[in-house]
Amino acid sequence: MFKTVEWKNNAVVLIDQTVLPDKEVYKTYRDYKSVAEAIKKMVVRGAPAIGVTGAFGVALGALKIKTNDSKKFRKEFGVIARHIASARPTAVNLCWGVERMTKIADENCDSSVPELKKLLIEEARKIHAEDIEINKRMGKHGGALLKNNSTVLTHCNAGALATAGYGTALGVIRGAIEAGKKISVFADETRPFLQGARLTAWELKKDNIDVTLITDNMAGHIMKKGHIDAVVVGADRIASNGDTANKIGTYTVALLAKEHKIPFYVAAPLSTIDMRIQNGEQIPIEERDSKEVTHLKGKQIAPAGVKVKNPAFDVTPNKLITGIITEKGVVRRPFKAGLKALFKK
Amino acid sequence: MFKTVEWKNNAVVLIDQTVLPDKEVYKTYRDYKSVAEAIKKMVVRGAPAIGVTGAFGVALGALKIKTNDSKKFRKEFGVIARHIASARPTAVNLCWGVERMTKIADENCDSSVPELKKLLIEEARKIHAEDIEINKRMGKHGGALLKNNSTVLTHCNAGALATAGYGTALGVIRGAIEAGKKISVFADETRPFLQGARLTAWELKKDNIDVTLITDNMAGHIMKKGHIDAVVVGADRIASNGDTANKIGTYTVALLAKEHKIPFYVAAPLSTIDMRIQNGEQIPIEERDSKEVTHLKGKQIAPAGVKVKNPAFDVTPNKLITGIITEKGVVRRPFKAGLKALFKK
Repeated sequence: MFKTVEWKNNAVVLIDQTVLPDKEVYKTYRDYKSVAEAIKKMVVRGAPAIGVTGAFGVALGALKIKTNDSKKFRKEFGVIARHIASARPTAVNLCWGVERMTKIADENCDSSVPELKKLLIEEARKIHAEDIEINKRMGKHGGALLKNNSTVLTHCNAGALATAGYGTALGVIRGAIEAGKKISVFADETRPFLQGARLTAWELKKDNIDVTLITDNMAGHIMKKGHIDAVVVGADRIASNGDTANKIGTYTVALLAKEHKIPFYVAAPLSTIDMRIQNGEQIPIEERDSKEVTHLKGKQIAPAGVKVKNPAFDVTPNKLITGIITEKGVVRRPFKAGLKALFKK
Repeated sequence: MFKTVEWKNNAVVLIDQTVLPDKEVYKTYRDYKSVAEAIKKMVVRGAPAIGVTGAFGVALGALKIKTNDSKKFRKEFGVIARHIASARPTAVNLCWGVERMTKIADENCDSSVPELKKLLIEEARKIHAEDIEINKRMGKHGGALLKNNSTVLTHCNAGALATAGYGTALGVIRGAIEAGKKISVFADETRPFLQGARLTAWELKKDNIDVTLITDNMAGHIMKKGHIDAVVVGADRIASNGDTANKIGTYTVALLAKEHKIPFYVAAPLSTIDMRIQNGEQIPIEERDSKEVTHLKGKQIAPAGVKVKNPAFDVTPNKLITGIITEKGVVRRPFKAGLKALFKK
């Protein structure tokens, strides 16, 4: 099996998701700025995966700080943390990962610099290991919601490639299959970056999970024909009221699911839930390069100079969500109380 | 300006829509089988355009029949007509165009073969000229529905490239602009064949009409943000109750429009209305080659061997349609009575 993100010989190793499924290439990063660049360019993507990669990036940056003076170290550490955290705006996991690292730096400000470096690397590795563990727990909780012989539609890639491993939405599907159920998957190709066609189809095929690829605009027709029993997607940020930012197109899938009376589930770890914001309106939506829309594999597919909008995410209002699957169980309406309770357990 | 389809020196000339917008190439067809093949391969596409091309194809086939025996001619003519009519199943205009030609052959069965060939070519040219005229009338009726300074979303290409010229949905936009209104357009790229990105964006830019390109899955987000005032699309076949088959994804756009209280208009000539069928369930939906989804410009964008669904059209139920814009005026609910009345005028 592939490794999405790894700490290896004091470097960060990423599978290059921009060239999948053509090539399975692993890239090694030896400085924090190139890790931030890899996040920006979507060599690694998926909220939990960039949370883990961000933590590794901070560890890498810290490791390379040349001073042994604790105060100077802490100052440089702050620059690194802010740089990594600002690589992408929508997924809150990136901030969350960086904040966990910052907490270690703060709590151990009396330690020597070499000791602190060791602690930071340990913390990043812990975040990585925990992520897989969390996904498996989500898989158990969420898998129980899927019926035997059902067909699940998913959007984008919320799989092993979007996490440290196993996946959130695809983790739920894996959880159901591990519980002995027969599950088929429909994958939206997910323009413009084609995470569904390139990543979800690839990782499910690799896992021998039955997958059928469709273009995004086919989901409505397929639902109307009665082919879909449930929708499971991941999330980039969930507001305290349950409003969920996820890959562009998710909002439309949620509306379609509601119209066709199909349950719509969001699978995400607690690190994706941002209790500091009241609702989805407060989630920043990243606008990406127009070339993602006008070009494909370097080839132009639209007239030169055409105006383009390229919002990378949209917000699904809580009223369209049947349940939010977390590692601590499934939250249902009213989400505000349910999500709050999760953090008290 | 470009010519979508033309009768020239006893041959059919088509702009090759598979290579737009990179290249503006015109192809000449000298036998009816290659015209049918061009329709199949989508060198020409769009319901009215394939209706016109089908009529020209029949004329071309008839012209090349070698006998002067009227009975033998009629038999060969039948083979040609059936071959052309079966090139694509969903758009009823193809059958309609072929039937108009067949009617000429039937009504003039006493004419000499050379005389009949002349009449058939005349009829096809008439169908071509009428189509542009019809679109302009649609543009007047439909243009009146659009407010000044409004932004219209369209899906696929229902423009000059989808007709003999001027367009149905884009004809409505052109009609509004000719009436002095300022109209901006959002074009869905329309996967898998990218008619929006490759054709609509190209022909609107060429006409200096303000156009912004988005991927199909962005329409919901853009509507939620309040950027869209109306939706206008074309149609491949309208059942007698108003249910409308159009390019895959149209159904989703219609649901999104309803959710956001945006009027949703279908612009189509009477030749697209199939009064012989009761509802959309009876419209055959073409399933096309999976390579349209897995490959783009010859490049593979999904894992080899992945299962694919590729329905080329979907059906929008009449309840989601605000009005059907025809050359004889705008029909509103109840569509059944309204559409019936059109054919009595």
